[in-house]
Amino acid sequence: MPQELRAVLSPAEPVPRVGAALVVDVIRATTTAAALLTAGARELVWVGSVEEARAEAQRRGALLAGERGGVPPAGFDLGNSPVAPGAAKVAGRVVVMTTTNGTRAALRAAAAAETLGLAALVNATAAARWLLAFEGEVAIVAAGREGRLAFDDVYTLGALAARLVALAPELELDEGARVALALYRSHPDPRTALRESAAARALEPVGLAGDVEACAREDRVALVPALAAREGGALRFLPVYPEEV
Amino acid sequence: MPQELRAVLSPAEPVPRVGAALVVDVIRATTTAAALLTAGARELVWVGSVEEARAEAQRRGALLAGERGGVPPAGFDLGNSPVAPGAAKVAGRVVVMTTTNGTRAALRAAAAAETLGLAALVNATAAARWLLAFEGEVAIVAAGREGRLAFDDVYTLGALAARLVALAPELELDEGARVALALYRSHPDPRTALRESAAARALEPVGLAGDVEACAREDRVALVPALAAREGGALRFLPVYPEEV
Repeated sequence: MPQELRAVLSPAEPVPRVGAALVVDVIRATTTAAALLTAGARELVWVGSVEEARAEAQRRGALLAGERGGVPPAGFDLGNSPVAPGAAKVAGRVVVMTTTNGTRAALRAAAAAETLGLAALVNATAAARWLLAFEGEVAIVAAGREGRLAFDDVYTLGALAARLVALAPELELDEGARVALALYRSHPDPRTALRESAAARALEPVGLAGDVEACAREDRVALVPALAAREGGALRFLPVYPEEV
Repeated sequence: MPQELRAVLSPAEPVPRVGAALVVDVIRATTTAAALLTAGARELVWVGSVEEARAEAQRRGALLAGERGGVPPAGFDLGNSPVAPGAAKVAGRVVVMTTTNGTRAALRAAAAAETLGLAALVNATAAARWLLAFEGEVAIVAAGREGRLAFDDVYTLGALAARLVALAPELELDEGARVALALYRSHPDPRTALRESAAARALEPVGLAGDVEACAREDRVALVPALAAREGGALRFLPVYPEEV
């Protein structure tokens, strides 16, 4: 059981050196990661750039997923939508992903944390359970957007903090985590909260506003994409199913 | 009337280039600044280090106020308490101040903003009115504590945002400001909110827990300590009384 939860609310804040960190980019990268593994993808490989993604996918015979400006780059098999991935397409496949904010946040967190999990509202309780298996200080890193704090990610950090304090009342929350928890508790309907965010509004002009509904569902999946290996600039994630604590 | 409010919730976040910024260190530097001017101090001079403070005070024949570790350094006339300053002592005097987090935040903000005001709960409405006199982008900078986000400063940022949206409903709040506003609205009693902060708890061992009560009072004074001049590393503040907008 960890002792203290450190929160990183903004991409400008340094990620503390911790045993384990959850990374949150609820609209949409970490929600999509959970959806891809739920749909049967065997493994996710997160990389920072479109060029690396193309090279990794070719080398591994993998599918390519992700976005720039909200839409899939040329030649990508999938976008960054938690709605689209059908089991027929992804089952048994490795999926290489790159997104504007989420994969960048994961790479930043990977440089400071011994291991990582990917968290969203859809897997909030599972992600909280996963984090509770570690000792000492643990962190949750809100990916943010364009270098700045993102309302939807801070809200989701609060949703995770709410599960953590329910499961482990003795866990100490730092001040950032308590700010996020107050934000979560002030919005009983996650759809209302996510719709307030710039990330949600940015999906409207590209016809993807419906994705926000999928990102706002809480506790629909019991898996956490958890770091299995680092290979150069690539992070490999496999699904884990944390047991009840 | 400004168009957008930018919020800086943590000392790790850069201060944007804006026309005007409010700096918040509610426990206790900005509350004390308002109290000193209310008690009749003629002018405040904020500097970054104890050595600079001693030199400035000697040069100006000024009183010395501030803290390190919560208590006044050797030879200081006053601490950093919003309760202590009596009119008999400070009336008509220049007061040179240095504190651990507040003066550092003001110096950081002064490097990015064209002008500055000092804001706390005691002068929240006055500070909001002061900020509304500027155009374009304006900012509120939460000082934080030991390099990290401080619950009490983010809460006070939210209190200021609440006044701003009440006075200027068309003002756009960035995502950080909306997080702070939700935190403020979730705590109807400011004393409860401030007592949750590490800054409040740090005052207990030095016998200053009573200062938190003084910092938690809203709208008791109609003045804003506003930047009048920069002289080297020193910021000179004079009281201004913003008119109703």
